[in-house]
Amino acid sequence: MATVEELKLRVRELENELIKCRQKQSFVDDAHKHTQNRPRIDRMSAEVVDSNPYSRLMALKRMGIVDDYEKIRTFTVAVVGVGGVGSVTAEMLTRCGIGKLILFDYDKVELANMNRLFFQPHQAGLSKVEAAEHTLRNINPDVWFETHNYNITTLDNFNHFMDRISHGGLEEGKPVDLILSCVDNFEARMAINTACNELGQIWMESGVSENAVSGHIQLIIPGETACFACAPPLVVAANIDEKTLKREGVCAASLPTTMGVVAGLLVQNVLKYLLKFGSVSYYLGYNAMQDFFPSMSMKPNPQCNDRHCRKQQDEYKKKEAERPKVEVVEEEEEVVHEENDWGIELVSEVTDTELQTASGPMPDLPEGITVAYTIPAQVQESGEMLEDTEQSLEELMAQMRKL
Amino acid sequence: MATVEELKLRVRELENELIKCRQKQSFVDDAHKHTQNRPRIDRMSAEVVDSNPYSRLMALKRMGIVDDYEKIRTFTVAVVGVGGVGSVTAEMLTRCGIGKLILFDYDKVELANMNRLFFQPHQAGLSKVEAAEHTLRNINPDVWFETHNYNITTLDNFNHFMDRISHGGLEEGKPVDLILSCVDNFEARMAINTACNELGQIWMESGVSENAVSGHIQLIIPGETACFACAPPLVVAANIDEKTLKREGVCAASLPTTMGVVAGLLVQNVLKYLLKFGSVSYYLGYNAMQDFFPSMSMKPNPQCNDRHCRKQQDEYKKKEAERPKVEVVEEEEEVVHEENDWGIELVSEVTDTELQTASGPMPDLPEGITVAYTIPAQVQESGEMLEDTEQSLEELMAQMRKL
Repeated sequence: MATVEELKLRVRELENELIKCRQKQSFVDDAHKHTQNRPRIDRMSAEVVDSNPYSRLMALKRMGIVDDYEKIRTFTVAVVGVGGVGSVTAEMLTRCGIGKLILFDYDKVELANMNRLFFQPHQAGLSKVEAAEHTLRNINPDVWFETHNYNITTLDNFNHFMDRISHGGLEEGKPVDLILSCVDNFEARMAINTACNELGQIWMESGVSENAVSGHIQLIIPGETACFACAPPLVVAANIDEKTLKREGVCAASLPTTMGVVAGLLVQNVLKYLLKFGSVSYYLGYNAMQDFFPSMSMKPNPQCNDRHCRKQQDEYKKKEAERPKVEVVEEEEEVVHEENDWGIELVSEVTDTELQTASGPMPDLPEGITVAYTIPAQVQESGEMLEDTEQSLEELMAQMRKL
Repeated sequence: MATVEELKLRVRELENELIKCRQKQSFVDDAHKHTQNRPRIDRMSAEVVDSNPYSRLMALKRMGIVDDYEKIRTFTVAVVGVGGVGSVTAEMLTRCGIGKLILFDYDKVELANMNRLFFQPHQAGLSKVEAAEHTLRNINPDVWFETHNYNITTLDNFNHFMDRISHGGLEEGKPVDLILSCVDNFEARMAINTACNELGQIWMESGVSENAVSGHIQLIIPGETACFACAPPLVVAANIDEKTLKREGVCAASLPTTMGVVAGLLVQNVLKYLLKFGSVSYYLGYNAMQDFFPSMSMKPNPQCNDRHCRKQQDEYKKKEAERPKVEVVEEEEEVVHEENDWGIELVSEVTDTELQTASGPMPDLPEGITVAYTIPAQVQESGEMLEDTEQSLEELMAQMRKL
């Protein structure tokens, strides 16, 4: 057994080791503090000086584009997927001075990611959310960050994800203002869709095809526009062999250009939506081969497999019916995608009949637009499977809540 | 005095503290170790492993998009202007594995630039080309970099600029393959135009409006398409008070979104042009307010003020006339901007008559498209001034060459 003297010696040894470790630590922290930038800024200023990181953004007010740019600091945006599109999306929002960012991803940075913007080779091996938070905090210390290094599609994580998007706003307890889906697979999109339909949370979808030369963004307002389960997301795939779009077990191609354009169009749509300027796009495609940008809007599918989507549709209809007649004109302006003066955008309202066929794997769509994500094989075999999966997740979640 | 139990508790506490401190330490050391770059890679590989930075680019071959992706390593691109568009352009090309990049800029990084992608606060005060080279070399050590920290519009520098674009290729002595104009003023664009007309050098123009919500890219082939002096560059400015576009002495607005989209469209056009896939755009506009993307192509102006442009036009016509008739069809395909299947792009061939009016400050353009850069006041007052300025620069250069 150890004597008092031996123990005292061990305490002294440990104390010395700890002091040494902490000294080294404080030295590193100090060095870090020096590379570390400007202090937090309390109020955005429009002053035109080289040292003001917000002068060029506040100039949007003087230019007559945005009425109240400072309002950006009051918003919380959740970005799900911090890969080729999500990382650039998060960086753009950070540089624009968004109030709070919540990042979700479970992946690690790899050298194979270096053909897209944002991550750097020295970050290989780090988790994407950890690496992203470090870079973003350094770029703009005024933004609040919250990161979650997990896969949102597993039951426990989905539950936590639901909790954070409904309570993780700038003011803890309030919901986030917008969710951006920057994921690369069907399951994760479906999980976001399920959560947003249940919560009535507005979100935006984004995606890039596996051949790297087309992409899209889409605004989804539960009950008002088609959700991800109403109709599969669409992508421009003109003049491209469709078989090249999805191949099992083959490394997908990607380009920093396509992903940068999609992130730019997505965050532009976010800014227009949050700061109320220009026309917010419901669906905007990008075909890099032809520099072709189709746009459209889609009504929800009354036979949607997601019961929360159907519930949101009923609530939206009820709300619309309750509106006094004078406001109906205004409402129509909101719902219908604004055509530009030259009428050259492809704005196609999909009819209910068309949407009924959309529950199958390949809906009847305007020429030149095809489905980007095919529903995974086991789900495709039986039309019911999709609902079953979604329902059982909800049931399990309801059970969890009772505990 | 401390009892044995108390001492044991303290030992356990200290051990835990030390473990925590050392974990933090090893994480920092590890991160530091990673700041060392990867070694140069001799040959691009298509191998699908996490450690291969080119796997997702080489996959473009398997996807049937690009025939020979490796060819990218043989090209040299000069980027003039390393600001909001130029820095992202350089980063995209670096991540794509371009052979050599030559960067020109005379500006310093400021905190006021932090609302756009690429530069970081700790780089404030450094020259843009120096900061960019450091970041880019770290991202991809396989790219060769050459930087010039000067303003290309002064006589000496213009001379050196001409020399580098005609001899600074990957194989020293050979010309560069493409010049990208990412500058923010009329004079610098005019200097690039003058140099490219004299050398018969193909280049691409880019620009973002001062209200931050529109931009464009343009491919200029001396003698074959309109040059910068044939017709002022065009920009989408629909539904925006034109007076907001240019105001003297007012800080211009800028957004990371618009600049990211313009850089993405520009580099996509570069990749399509260099690696021969898809349709290369002659002129592509971006109006962020409406998500409207007009495209067109423009023939050169036979009365262009730049005599080298007129000379290139003569040479092009002679070359075309000499071509055997069987090739004429192919030639037409090259010149005419490819319409997409749905005929929704605005492809307007500007007639010679229209272009004659374009020498004035405001040409007769399709609705919704207006001029992005007005010719500076002193030049605008007299139509002859433009030619005089350009001519005297040429004369001075001729004198320089004689020395």
